[in-house]
Amino acid sequence: MRLVSFVDQGRFVPGVRLGEQVVPVSALAGFPDDALALLAAGADTLHRLDAAARSAPAATHRALSSLTLGMPIPRPGKVICIGLNYALHAKEGGNPIPDYPAVFLRVQSSLVGPNQPMLRPGCSDKLDYEAELAIIIGSRARCVSEADALAHVAGYSLFNDGSVRDYQRKSTQWTMGKNFDATGAFGPEIVSADELPPGAAPLRITARVDGQTVQDSTTGDMIFSVARCIAILSEVMTLEPGDVIATGTPSGVGYARKPPLFLAPGKVVEIEVEGVGVLRNTIADDPAFAA
Amino acid sequence: MRLVSFVDQGRFVPGVRLGEQVVPVSALAGFPDDALALLAAGADTLHRLDAAARSAPAATHRALSSLTLGMPIPRPGKVICIGLNYALHAKEGGNPIPDYPAVFLRVQSSLVGPNQPMLRPGCSDKLDYEAELAIIIGSRARCVSEADALAHVAGYSLFNDGSVRDYQRKSTQWTMGKNFDATGAFGPEIVSADELPPGAAPLRITARVDGQTVQDSTTGDMIFSVARCIAILSEVMTLEPGDVIATGTPSGVGYARKPPLFLAPGKVVEIEVEGVGVLRNTIADDPAFAA
Repeated sequence: MRLVSFVDQGRFVPGVRLGEQVVPVSALAGFPDDALALLAAGADTLHRLDAAARSAPAATHRALSSLTLGMPIPRPGKVICIGLNYALHAKEGGNPIPDYPAVFLRVQSSLVGPNQPMLRPGCSDKLDYEAELAIIIGSRARCVSEADALAHVAGYSLFNDGSVRDYQRKSTQWTMGKNFDATGAFGPEIVSADELPPGAAPLRITARVDGQTVQDSTTGDMIFSVARCIAILSEVMTLEPGDVIATGTPSGVGYARKPPLFLAPGKVVEIEVEGVGVLRNTIADDPAFAA
Repeated sequence: MRLVSFVDQGRFVPGVRLGEQVVPVSALAGFPDDALALLAAGADTLHRLDAAARSAPAATHRALSSLTLGMPIPRPGKVICIGLNYALHAKEGGNPIPDYPAVFLRVQSSLVGPNQPMLRPGCSDKLDYEAELAIIIGSRARCVSEADALAHVAGYSLFNDGSVRDYQRKSTQWTMGKNFDATGAFGPEIVSADELPPGAAPLRITARVDGQTVQDSTTGDMIFSVARCIAILSEVMTLEPGDVIATGTPSGVGYARKPPLFLAPGKVVEIEVEGVGVLRNTIADDPAFAA
């Protein structure tokens, strides 16, 4: 089941994508017209939703190409990011292989949806991409074991953990470099967990800049697996339906390349995970710095 | 003007505190019954709200002692924390005086309101207190100068940036140690900016554990003033009404004391800033670890 969010009469509403068509959830009787409520309703409901969409009359279908998509969860409760979760990426940044993940948070204003411009702030020319698999939590989780963790996953999506590298290193804490307005991206859709191997691994993960492949790895190379990330995070904080966990990026990021490759206005970044889709964004200047 | 939030028929609603009495905003015609909307309405509205509360009939008053208070903003949009903002605290942790603040974020689930139990997780005995002044944003701010910054402040409150020290140091990023469920506190009320000196400095800031003063400094000793914090943060991200900025803690935290002083169930922590009030919480064991 593939859940998107699109603009309808000025607000973001959920829809089920079937190929090049989208069936608005509002056209299907018996389902909440809200992405968070759908995720919280559980896997059986997502199954029934998919079946209902497939048997919905053609008149309810909307052409995907005619819609403005947004983040598949318009207002995620928490966006939790795992740093240094691929051995080669840790190494390219000069970091040791961690035995506990480096975790940071992103605020909602730092993220845009699919096809929306990612903004380069006027105070830096060091905007960088990071291809990541995103976990979408489906049920409340606190102090869950690694063995029980995957039962709390509703599905997966894609994440571009865009980073302003010079600001990321202005102090020991990465928060500022990770939270410039509209510097990251999330989407284009949530793929329900049943469509992927358990824990979404191994799956090929890639990033492209203007069509050139710059990251190419597999989610099977994660140091902390999806289940382990959930177990570790849930020891600390209650995970809630609709929370997003970005699971870290493989090697090949722009700042570590020789020569470095940073994102400039007009460049197109694509994040792809096999079976999960492609998240595409074009870079633009942040108008907040125009004055 | 002093804005509290209290439980009324199962939800948190705003009220104006007048001494030992609280006037529910719902009893006053012409004001939104929502803390965020009130803060966003601006200083003039807060003034009129205070005047309306003072002339409200006695029948509308509720005894403060009869109310269950919550965080003065029940669902803050962002909770942004400044680390190492007092020179002696940076020094007691072995850190140099920073020229750019260390910034991290807290999720809402990590915070409780006044008088609510702060929880010690079962996986650590290193829960620590941090007395902080909290800035409450009143109007949207992006790329504002230090000179213009204070115009975006609705008021101030108190913050206990409770920290699980061993988890704070498990990686380079402090996020995990700062985000255990219910390990921090925020409140008891928002004091409108006009009741304090510009930038809320200099004001005495103290912390007490079981009545013993353990932190004692002044907000005038901040390395990054209120105005400077807002200017620096707003270069990165849009600040919105109701966002909370915790401005860092002075020296005297538990882990740096000889012998160390950590928080254990039954201990009472009080955070006080002159003119802003007292934030009091009792420590309890987190029941999530009871199993």
